[in-house]
Amino acid sequence: MTEILISEVGPRDGLQSIERVMPLEAKKRWIAAEAAAGVKEIEVGSFVPPKLLPQMADTAKLVAFAKGIAGLTVVTLVPNARGAQFAIDAGVDGMSIPFSMSETHSIKNVRKDHPAMLAEIAAAAEIARGAGVHFAVGLSTAFGCTMEGAVSEDQVVRLAEQAAEAGAQEFSLSDTTGYADPAQVRRLTRKVKAAVGDEMLTTLHLHNTRGLGLANVVAGLEEGITTFDASLGGLGGCPFAPGASGNLVTEDLVLMLNSMGYDTGIDLEKLLEVRAIIEEALPGEPLYGFTPDAGPMLDYKDRVAA
Amino acid sequence: MTEILISEVGPRDGLQSIERVMPLEAKKRWIAAEAAAGVKEIEVGSFVPPKLLPQMADTAKLVAFAKGIAGLTVVTLVPNARGAQFAIDAGVDGMSIPFSMSETHSIKNVRKDHPAMLAEIAAAAEIARGAGVHFAVGLSTAFGCTMEGAVSEDQVVRLAEQAAEAGAQEFSLSDTTGYADPAQVRRLTRKVKAAVGDEMLTTLHLHNTRGLGLANVVAGLEEGITTFDASLGGLGGCPFAPGASGNLVTEDLVLMLNSMGYDTGIDLEKLLEVRAIIEEALPGEPLYGFTPDAGPMLDYKDRVAA
Repeated sequence: MTEILISEVGPRDGLQSIERVMPLEAKKRWIAAEAAAGVKEIEVGSFVPPKLLPQMADTAKLVAFAKGIAGLTVVTLVPNARGAQFAIDAGVDGMSIPFSMSETHSIKNVRKDHPAMLAEIAAAAEIARGAGVHFAVGLSTAFGCTMEGAVSEDQVVRLAEQAAEAGAQEFSLSDTTGYADPAQVRRLTRKVKAAVGDEMLTTLHLHNTRGLGLANVVAGLEEGITTFDASLGGLGGCPFAPGASGNLVTEDLVLMLNSMGYDTGIDLEKLLEVRAIIEEALPGEPLYGFTPDAGPMLDYKDRVAA
Repeated sequence: MTEILISEVGPRDGLQSIERVMPLEAKKRWIAAEAAAGVKEIEVGSFVPPKLLPQMADTAKLVAFAKGIAGLTVVTLVPNARGAQFAIDAGVDGMSIPFSMSETHSIKNVRKDHPAMLAEIAAAAEIARGAGVHFAVGLSTAFGCTMEGAVSEDQVVRLAEQAAEAGAQEFSLSDTTGYADPAQVRRLTRKVKAAVGDEMLTTLHLHNTRGLGLANVVAGLEEGITTFDASLGGLGGCPFAPGASGNLVTEDLVLMLNSMGYDTGIDLEKLLEVRAIIEEALPGEPLYGFTPDAGPMLDYKDRVAA
């Protein structure tokens, strides 16, 4: 059985896009319950200034808490070198920095053009390397941008090469805007792997804005992708990319991968129960997913065991 | 560019699962508008006794109307030989008979076990052959049954072989219950093609009950499937399979295939406008789909032209 890593990004990508702040204790319950369901990696937050994203202000506390859970890889997002230092100080296992392939989006989102971002990546990479912490670069808006429209694949390849030179240890291709189609996923994954090396691109971060999330996962699997980001209940999206809501739903992703015979290590029934924690902590917040409504197939357990 | 045929089944599979009867004139507007958007095949109804499904009572009139639309292939569902004769009399281009791979579902749905259904298929095939009309067999509940659970793949293969001997000219694999996963789609498509011949299995009828519809399309494309059934707004499902609601949404399927560079011949913008006809004729009826909310990507037209 092929192992597939599902990286839960709801506590970061989900919660940062919601105005209300989830109480620390609820976040802890969420993280602990997902880990207990078998989730092996969780992005617990983001080291951004609390003034910008008060929802993420307790990230250091969450890292400390999550590090106490055996077997869990604790990662955070960092916007820059300053954030990377906070992440190191907090004790993360890994960090990733978003690098927007659309320069318009990059300037709008973090007020940095591509050369400035590459300098930031180099500085953050050095901090991570010094601490022996895994450092990934998320190639965001890689499949298109709500401001620029198409993002050239050659540009994505070139920026990935430059980020590798700047110290990226690994990449994810990120469909920030829900623009990706399966043919594009296949094409761009191949091109970036060819440029920076197979082992440097293992992750896809997909959104389900146009309902193509799981179709894109199928395309990614065929190109050797082994890690998929997802958000419980499809919570969240990028607040700076209008209309980009709708993370891939963890529950549906687990149903699909487990049914297909992949080894995610995640117990779907336990995972479905985790939704209650979000529902209780953020009453009325829209949660998504088909599996929570329809339930697994009657023969789901036979599929998983096969 | 590879041509993919999208067969709109909403006027049959969608409307038969809704208690209200859509007025004949609205059905005509729907069919005409979809054909004008570039849809090349529409299943306009079903020749079942009006007492059982009053929603389908005007099927003969719809066939007559749709036959007047240049370039449109007009197909209907028929439950048995009697229905096949009605379809011939009405002047259809093609018909398909559902053959449930789950014997429990078959008995519950049409009160016929497998031998009785094979006899019915033989009788219907003879009527169709006599009239020179295309005759397809839909292998329904092929991916699992809400009553039986797993349906053995060997059984699906054996029943397909027997239906071919009985006169089936073509098959579709039908995920009546929304149970299919992409690995299963690939496996079963290969097995059935190997048994009855590549050219005999060109169609998938998928539901989106667990959100895996488009992921299953990607798997089908890779196995050489060239026709996909879908329902505008995801209307409907099988009324006899509990929890099986949720046809594949035509709008999302068209967005995905067109973006991927397949030639569906369908104009997405015109297709999206067709929803208004359903909304007006069936006020309050839930319609589904991501593309209608999110709209196409900013660079959608460039993708289609590429």
